[in-house]
Amino acid sequence: MTLPLAVTVTEVGPRDGLQNESAQISTPDKIAFIDRLSAAGLREIEVTAFVSAKRIPQLSDAADVLAGITKRPGTRYSALVPNMEGFKRATDAGVTDLAIFAAASETFSQRNTNRSIDASFEEYEAVAKAATAGGLRLRAYLSTAFGCPFEGEVPPARVVELTRRLLDLGVFEVAVSDTIGIAHPAQVRALLPQLLATIPPAHIALHFHDTRGTALANVLAALDFGITTFDSSAGGLGGCPFAPRATGNLATEDLLYMLHGLGVETGVDLNAVSDAVLALAPQLGHPLASRYTQAR
Amino acid sequence: MTLPLAVTVTEVGPRDGLQNESAQISTPDKIAFIDRLSAAGLREIEVTAFVSAKRIPQLSDAADVLAGITKRPGTRYSALVPNMEGFKRATDAGVTDLAIFAAASETFSQRNTNRSIDASFEEYEAVAKAATAGGLRLRAYLSTAFGCPFEGEVPPARVVELTRRLLDLGVFEVAVSDTIGIAHPAQVRALLPQLLATIPPAHIALHFHDTRGTALANVLAALDFGITTFDSSAGGLGGCPFAPRATGNLATEDLLYMLHGLGVETGVDLNAVSDAVLALAPQLGHPLASRYTQAR
Repeated sequence: MTLPLAVTVTEVGPRDGLQNESAQISTPDKIAFIDRLSAAGLREIEVTAFVSAKRIPQLSDAADVLAGITKRPGTRYSALVPNMEGFKRATDAGVTDLAIFAAASETFSQRNTNRSIDASFEEYEAVAKAATAGGLRLRAYLSTAFGCPFEGEVPPARVVELTRRLLDLGVFEVAVSDTIGIAHPAQVRALLPQLLATIPPAHIALHFHDTRGTALANVLAALDFGITTFDSSAGGLGGCPFAPRATGNLATEDLLYMLHGLGVETGVDLNAVSDAVLALAPQLGHPLASRYTQAR
Repeated sequence: MTLPLAVTVTEVGPRDGLQNESAQISTPDKIAFIDRLSAAGLREIEVTAFVSAKRIPQLSDAADVLAGITKRPGTRYSALVPNMEGFKRATDAGVTDLAIFAAASETFSQRNTNRSIDASFEEYEAVAKAATAGGLRLRAYLSTAFGCPFEGEVPPARVVELTRRLLDLGVFEVAVSDTIGIAHPAQVRALLPQLLATIPPAHIALHFHDTRGTALANVLAALDFGITTFDSSAGGLGGCPFAPRATGNLATEDLLYMLHGLGVETGVDLNAVSDAVLALAPQLGHPLASRYTQAR
């Protein structure tokens, strides 16, 4: 088993994490958090989303956060946009790296975004066209790729088809996502050969949640297939909307601890990420989910 | 990669777990907990230790616990004994399955048991002789096999040598243990070929702590080498004596969730284990460490 020499860790804590926190973090606290994360060496940070302030009040300060952070050369700061309205707000705020969010389960798509999978792709075609025209970089999430809270199992063939459709839109990579944290390594070992039969590994990122403790085992399984981009959330910020007391996103510190132990380079300073989390921790109102940071 | 068809889960929560809990659990609550675990299908349960009541008051009711549990046919109930005095108390209480506990680090041996590694082996020679004479089954732990809180790295060659010495005493298996939860899968992939060069996998159990989130990744790495016995603690009971807020033992529920997902049989009912933990939870005074049970 040959492991990759280096891996890109895509930090999603400021967006995917904070969006699911019940505490409202102040704009200056968010800016300080993001600046600490970039100073720690994280080179891909999803900082916010341009979504309905009514639906997700935690991210209503998207433009202010983007205006306030210290942009480090070489670091990419991305924002999620659900539609053309979000695209316009994001580009008005100077965003050059965008992310879109599709579902692999029809029921989840309806419940989460109030539209069918096909309807979301129609919207994303417009977003992708505008992004290409503007020379912007576009990333995609494919949620519920390992299972759906409403439909249960999601066939790997559907994940392959939708990943393909997202890449055909022009996104540079698809973050194949275990939205509810039910994936186990056998699923990873079954899905990846199917994805990689037609898609180069550089176009695939994996986004695991640690809701049942399996996230790092899934990362290990994926590393063996040559996957080199993994999403994680500093501190394990975010929780799980489907189980109030449960863990959500894989914690960046835990991911870095394992990768560095494996001899895989990330360019990120683990304890600097952990310090960034500890600085934010008092605002969260609950214990941290990162096992590494708990153990410091 | 071929996974084993079936795995033995050795439940250590009632001993290794409760010994490190600050709350004193009542004898009837312990008995009910153990009976629920055996009813859930766990066939190897370490129920207590015959140690100094002064040093470990949580386990001072060892004989009463053993007398109170409902012994299910086919289930083995073991007890840890640190010396011949413990051996006599255990066998007086009717114990037929014993465990001894050696360290791979000299400093840890001194600090944890107040004697050198060689002195502990002298004591265990007597225990092993008496166990063999009595037709009793003896298991051994080798602690700090992946690192020591005082000495840091522990050379794999020393782990191989001490595992060999323990097997030469007549133990049926050695639980190679990551006492402080720092192991990562590269260590597992490096150590196991060295152990398995001269020792059949049936004599090796692995005992991981989840202090930095890597326990299940380590189990996955070990399954690929044909290891078929893993220790775990229901609920993740136990914490970590070296980091007060941190996670200790790998939670049995999380281990079962991954194994069952991988298609590996255990004969254990995952939700029955989780129910046993939830029944005990109010007595513990802190949130559970099992991610699976948190997510129910």
